Amino acid sequence: MLHFESDYTMSAHPAILQALQASSQEHYAGYGLDTVSQEAQDRIRAATLNPDADIHFVAGGTQANKIVIASLLRAFEGVVATDSAHIATHEAGAIESSSHKVLTTPQVNGKLTSEALQQVLDSWENDDNRDHMVRPGMVYISHPTEFGTLYSRSELATLHSICLKHHIPLFVDGARLGYGLAAKSTDVTLPDLAQYADVFTIGGTKMGALFGEAIVLRHRDMIASFFSQIKLHGALLAKGWLLGLQFNTLFNDNLYWNIGEYADHLAMQIHDTAASKGYSFMVDSPTNQQFFTVDHQTIERLSQYMPVAVWQQRENQFDIRIATSWSTTQDDVDQLLTLL
Amino acid sequence: MLHFESDYTMSAHPAILQALQASSQEHYAGYGLDTVSQEAQDRIRAATLNPDADIHFVAGGTQANKIVIASLLRAFEGVVATDSAHIATHEAGAIESSSHKVLTTPQVNGKLTSEALQQVLDSWENDDNRDHMVRPGMVYISHPTEFGTLYSRSELATLHSICLKHHIPLFVDGARLGYGLAAKSTDVTLPDLAQYADVFTIGGTKMGALFGEAIVLRHRDMIASFFSQIKLHGALLAKGWLLGLQFNTLFNDNLYWNIGEYADHLAMQIHDTAASKGYSFMVDSPTNQQFFTVDHQTIERLSQYMPVAVWQQRENQFDIRIATSWSTTQDDVDQLLTLL
Amino acid sequence: MLHFESDYTMSAHPAILQALQASSQEHYAGYGLDTVSQEAQDRIRAATLNPDADIHFVAGGTQANKIVIASLLRAFEGVVATDSAHIATHEAGAIESSSHKVLTTPQVNGKLTSEALQQVLDSWENDDNRDHMVRPGMVYISHPTEFGTLYSRSELATLHSICLKHHIPLFVDGARLGYGLAAKSTDVTLPDLAQYADVFTIGGTKMGALFGEAIVLRHRDMIASFFSQIKLHGALLAKGWLLGLQFNTLFNDNLYWNIGEYADHLAMQIHDTAASKGYSFMVDSPTNQQFFTVDHQTIERLSQYMPVAVWQQRENQFDIRIATSWSTTQDDVDQLLTLL
Amino acid sequence: MLHFESDYTMSAHPAILQALQASSQEHYAGYGLDTVSQEAQDRIRAATLNPDADIHFVAGGTQANKIVIASLLRAFEGVVATDSAHIATHEAGAIESSSHKVLTTPQVNGKLTSEALQQVLDSWENDDNRDHMVRPGMVYISHPTEFGTLYSRSELATLHSICLKHHIPLFVDGARLGYGLAAKSTDVTLPDLAQYADVFTIGGTKMGALFGEAIVLRHRDMIASFFSQIKLHGALLAKGWLLGLQFNTLFNDNLYWNIGEYADHLAMQIHDTAASKGYSFMVDSPTNQQFFTVDHQTIERLSQYMPVAVWQQRENQFDIRIATSWSTTQDDVDQLLTLL
Repeated sequence: MLHFESDYTMSAHPAILQALQASSQEHYAGYGLDTVSQEAQDRIRAATLNPDADIHFVAGGTQANKIVIASLLRAFEGVVATDSAHIATHEAGAIESSSHKVLTTPQVNGKLTSEALQQVLDSWENDDNRDHMVRPGMVYISHPTEFGTLYSRSELATLHSICLKHHIPLFVDGARLGYGLAAKSTDVTLPDLAQYADVFTIGGTKMGALFGEAIVLRHRDMIASFFSQIKLHGALLAKGWLLGLQFNTLFNDNLYWNIGEYADHLAMQIHDTAASKGYSFMVDSPTNQQFFTVDHQTIERLSQYMPVAVWQQRENQFDIRIATSWSTTQDDVDQLLTLL
Repeated sequence: MLHFESDYTMSAHPAILQALQASSQEHYAGYGLDTVSQEAQDRIRAATLNPDADIHFVAGGTQANKIVIASLLRAFEGVVATDSAHIATHEAGAIESSSHKVLTTPQVNGKLTSEALQQVLDSWENDDNRDHMVRPGMVYISHPTEFGTLYSRSELATLHSICLKHHIPLFVDGARLGYGLAAKSTDVTLPDLAQYADVFTIGGTKMGALFGEAIVLRHRDMIASFFSQIKLHGALLAKGWLLGLQFNTLFNDNLYWNIGEYADHLAMQIHDTAASKGYSFMVDSPTNQQFFTVDHQTIERLSQYMPVAVWQQRENQFDIRIATSWSTTQDDVDQLLTLL
Repeated sequence: MLHFESDYTMSAHPAILQALQASSQEHYAGYGLDTVSQEAQDRIRAATLNPDADIHFVAGGTQANKIVIASLLRAFEGVVATDSAHIATHEAGAIESSSHKVLTTPQVNGKLTSEALQQVLDSWENDDNRDHMVRPGMVYISHPTEFGTLYSRSELATLHSICLKHHIPLFVDGARLGYGLAAKSTDVTLPDLAQYADVFTIGGTKMGALFGEAIVLRHRDMIASFFSQIKLHGALLAKGWLLGLQFNTLFNDNLYWNIGEYADHLAMQIHDTAASKGYSFMVDSPTNQQFFTVDHQTIERLSQYMPVAVWQQRENQFDIRIATSWSTTQDDVDQLLTLL
Repeated sequence: MLHFESDYTMSAHPAILQALQASSQEHYAGYGLDTVSQEAQDRIRAATLNPDADIHFVAGGTQANKIVIASLLRAFEGVVATDSAHIATHEAGAIESSSHKVLTTPQVNGKLTSEALQQVLDSWENDDNRDHMVRPGMVYISHPTEFGTLYSRSELATLHSICLKHHIPLFVDGARLGYGLAAKSTDVTLPDLAQYADVFTIGGTKMGALFGEAIVLRHRDMIASFFSQIKLHGALLAKGWLLGLQFNTLFNDNLYWNIGEYADHLAMQIHDTAASKGYSFMVDSPTNQQFFTVDHQTIERLSQYMPVAVWQQRENQFDIRIATSWSTTQDDVDQLLTLL
C-alpha cells in the first residue's frame, strides 16, 4: 500500500524517536518549565533572529490556533481569514467556541490578497454601523496555505504593513512551515517570517514530530499570562518536555529544513512528471501538497494501491491531494508515477 | 424635520402608553410570572392557532436571537443564515459570543433560497470531513427580511420541509413581523408562520411598543429551563409584566395588524409614486421598508429635510432606506413625495 | 392585600410615568445616542462630582453585572465576591456563562471584609501554583448588600486601597443604591462611592423606575468599545432614550434621594416597632430591606394579608424579608405593624 | 537527587517506549480512527466488563475534565464537586471558561460525602428561587482524591444512587486511577467503577504513559458527536494512534495494575516507617501520594537531597507531598527513609 493521503500517517522521524529513547532515564520539571524546553526555545530564538521571541509549545494545530486567537482578541473582535482557511473550515467551530467570529473573504490560490484584506478593514472602518459589527481584530493566514501555495516576501511585507497601519496583529499558521521555507521557488526565510508575523506557529506534527506546534510571539508582553491561558484551554501538557525535546531535535543540524527540502523535492518530481503526462492541477503548489484534477476512473484505479484523499468535486472532475513527507521514499514516488 | 430613517424613532403607540398609565396602581408578580403576561401569552396562542405554544417575552431583538440560538444549538452546531441576515452582520458577534458559528450562504433578494439551504446541508452531510466541520444545527430566516422582502407561503413550506427532513429547527426572526403579515401581496398568515416555524419572534419594538419581542416556541418541551436560560443571558426583566402589558395591547382589537397595514399602505404610496417618477429600487419590497437607489445630489437635498439612512454605496449610486411606521402621517408622506 | 415582598412589585414612580407620557411626540436617535440620555449622563456626572465618568444605561441588574465583569476581566481572571453576593447565588450562572469564575469568601453581615479580601489576594499571590489557578482580577461588592447592610466610608476606602495596591478594579453593585445613600446612619455619599469604586451601578428598577441601571465607569478608557460589548450581550436597547429619560427624572430635584429616604424611613419604623415587640433580626439593616426572624405560625398568619418572602430557614426559625419602596404608604406600614 | 515531588517527572514506562519504537514503520489512520486505538478500546471494554462503553483518548487531564463536563452539562447547569477538587482549584478556570460553574461543598478527607451531595441537591430543589440559580447538573469526584484517599465501594454506590435518583450523571476523574485500584485496602474494582460512574477517566500520564487519558462513557449515546466536541476543544490529536498505543500497552498483561501495585507498595513502606518514627499525616492515604506534616527545618534538610512539594502551610507546620511511581526504586525509598 502506498501512502500519499497525508503527511502525518507515520510515527516520527527516527531522530525524534531516538531522542525520546535516549531521555528515558531523565527527570524533568513539569509543564514545560524544564531545561530541554528552554534549549528548544533558545534554538528557535536563534533561528528566527529574534532574541525577544516568547515561545510556547502545545500539542496540536487547532489548539494553537484557538489559544492564540482567543488570547489576542478582545470580546468584540473577530479574526480575518480566507474562506478556505483551516480555522474557517476544518476546526469544528473551535474559534467560535471561544466566542470569536471568523471574518472570511474569498481566497485567491488559497491566499489572502492585500486587496481583500484592505477591503475588509476599510469596509468596517467606513461603516456607520461599525459599532454594531464585529471589529476585525487580527489577521490569520497559513503559510503554506491549505492549497500548498506560498506567500512571497513582498506579499507578506504588504500584509504586515496593512496590519501595522491598523494596529492589529498578523498571525501565520505554520502547520507545514518547513515545507514552505524549503520550497525551491520561495524567497521567504524564517527570519523574514518572524519579522512580518506578530505571532506564528512552527508545525511539528506534519514535519516529522509525533505531535507538537511551537507558538512564537514577537515579544514577551504580547499576551498576558499565556501559561495560564494555555492551561485553561486544557492544553498544558504535564510532561511538557516531550514538546521541547522534539523541537530541540527538529532545530538541530537543520533537520527541520532537511525534512522540508526532501519532501518538497519528491513532490516536485511528482508534479513535473504528472504535468508532462498532461495532468492538470487545482493550483500551482511548490510544496509537499499537490492537488491533481482527475476523473472518477483514475480514482478507482489509484484506490487499489493507495488511499485517495478527494479535496473537492465538480461533476466528474475530482481534485485529489498527494502529500509527501519525511517518510516518503523515492521508491514510493516511482510507483506512484508509474500508476499515473 | 421628517423622520423616515427608521421605524423606531418615536415613543410608543398611544394605546400602549395609555395601558401603562392605567396600570400604575397595580401590583404584579415579578419576572413575567404575572397575570397580564399570561393573558398576553393566551392571546398569542389564540392568534397563532397553537394552544401548545410556549411564549416568553424579552426586551430586544438581538437578545431574542442570541438566547434562542444558544438554547437550541449544541456545542458543535451552527446556524444557517444568509450573508445579509441580521445575526450575520449587525449583532456585533452576539451569536459567536455564545460560541456558535453563523454558516452563511448568499442571499437572493434578502432571502434564503431552498436551493441554497439544501446545498449547505448536503454539502455538510456528504463531506468526508464533516466531523471536523461545524454541523448545520438550525436555520435562521427573517420575515420580512432585512431588505423588506417576504417569503411566500410555499417558500416557507419548502424551507420547513427541508428542516424537518434534516431534523433541525426553523427559526424565523419576526422583528418586523406585523409589516409582513399585513402586506397586500402576502399569502402568509400568522397561523401559517406558526405552523412552518419551530420558533419565531413577534417584534414589538419596531411595531409600536416601547420595547419587547415575543419568542414563540412550537411546544413547551423545545428548550429546557428556558426561564433560567433567559436569566443567565441577563435578559430576565424584574418587571416582566411591562412586556406582557405591551403585547396584550398589541394583540387586542387587531392593533398589531392595523399598525402593519397602516405603515405598509403609506410605504406603497411612496413606492408607487417614486416608481412613477423613475426611481429604481434595490429590491422589490412590499413592506414598510423601501430601498431607493439615488445619487449623491439627491441625498444632499433630502438631508436638509430629514435624516437619510444610506444602506450601501456603489460609486455614485446610493441605496437609501425609507421606513414608515405607526407614527408616520399622511402629511409626512406627502411632504416626502414632494421632495422626491 | 399588603405588598412588602419586594421593592419592585409596582409600576413606576408617577414622575417617571409622567415624563414618559410627555415625551410621546418626540423623535429620538436610536441606541442611547439621544440628547435625553446625554442629559441624564450629565446629571449623573454632576451628582458624582466626576466630570470624566463614562456612563451607560442597560435594562437590568444581572445584565449590568454580567457585562461589566465580562468586559473588565481577562480570560484567566475571576471576580472576588462574598458567598452571599447576587452574582454568586441568584444570577443563574450569568458570570460563569461569560467564562469567569466567582471566587467566593464568607460574608460577614452580608459584607466583604478587608481581611477576607486580603486573604484571597495574598493566598493567590503566595501560591506556587498560582499560574494553575484563577487570578483574582476584580472585586465585587453590593451596597446595600443583599442583606440590606451598608459599608462605612472607611470600609470602602480600605477595600479601595487594597484593590489599588493590587491593580484590580473595585466594582460596586448599586441595585438599591438610593436606599443606601439615604440611610440615616450612613456616612457614604454618592461622590464617596464614585471615588472608591472604579465602576458602580445606580439601580433604577428597585428605586421607582420601570427598569434600568446606570453603569458608571471612572473614566472613558476603562473598557474598550463598551457600546459594542453591550450590543454583543444583547443588551443594547433600540429605544435607549427610555433609559435616559428615567434616569433624567430620577436625578432631577433629588427624586432618587427622596425615594430612598422615604422608604428607609418607613423601614426603620417597622424595624423599631418590631424590635420593641421583641422580634429579632437576621442582621441589623439600616435600609429598606428588613430581615425578621419568625416562626411558622407567624408566617401562616401574615400570609393571609400579604405575600411573605422567606429568605432562609433553620428548623422552625424563618428569616423573612420585608421591603419598603416609593409605593409603600404609611397606611400599609401601620397595617403591617398591627399584624406583627 | 531523589525525585518524590510528583509521579510524572520521568519519561514513560519502558514497555511504552518500546511499543513506540516498534511501531516506527507503521502507517496509521488519523485522529484516533486507527486499529491500535480500536484494540485499546476493546481491551478497556473487556477490563471494565462493559461491552457498550464508548471510549475516547485525549492528551491531558484538565482537557478530559473540561470536555466531559462541557459536553454533558446544559447551559444552565453546573457541576457539583468538593472545594479541594482539581476542577475547583488547579485548572485555571477551565470549567468556567466553558461557561459552567463548579458548585463546591467542603471536602472530608478529600472526599465528597453523600450527606454533602444530598444537601446541595435538596437545597437547590427546595429553593423557591431555584430557577434563578445554577442547577446541579452532574457530580464530579476524583478517585483517588487529590489527597490520595479512596472511596469505598459502598460510598460509590451511594453517590451513584443519589445521582440516579436525581437523573444526573456521576463523573469520576481517574487521573491516578491505577494507584486507587491497586491499593491494598480498597474494595473497588474497575468493573465496580464502571458500574457506578456514568463517565470516568483512566489516567495515563501519572501511571507511566508519556501522556494520555482514556474517557470511558457508559454507552455510545451519552454525548452527541463527541468526536467533534473533542475537536472543537482543540483536543483531537492528528496522530491519535499514539494514545491508543499507550493504552494498549498499559492494558496488556496487567501493566496498569502492576504499576499501581508497585508504587502503592513503596508508598506504604514510606508511610509505615515514617509513622513509626512519629511523623503525622494530613490524611490517611492508602495510595501513592503521602502527605506528611513536617516543620521548616525538615523541609530545609530534605531540600538538599530532593525537590520538596509543599501542599499547605499552617504557621510552622507544612504538609508536604511524597509521591511514588513506576520509576521509583527501592533504593530511592531506602534513601528517603534514611533522611526522614
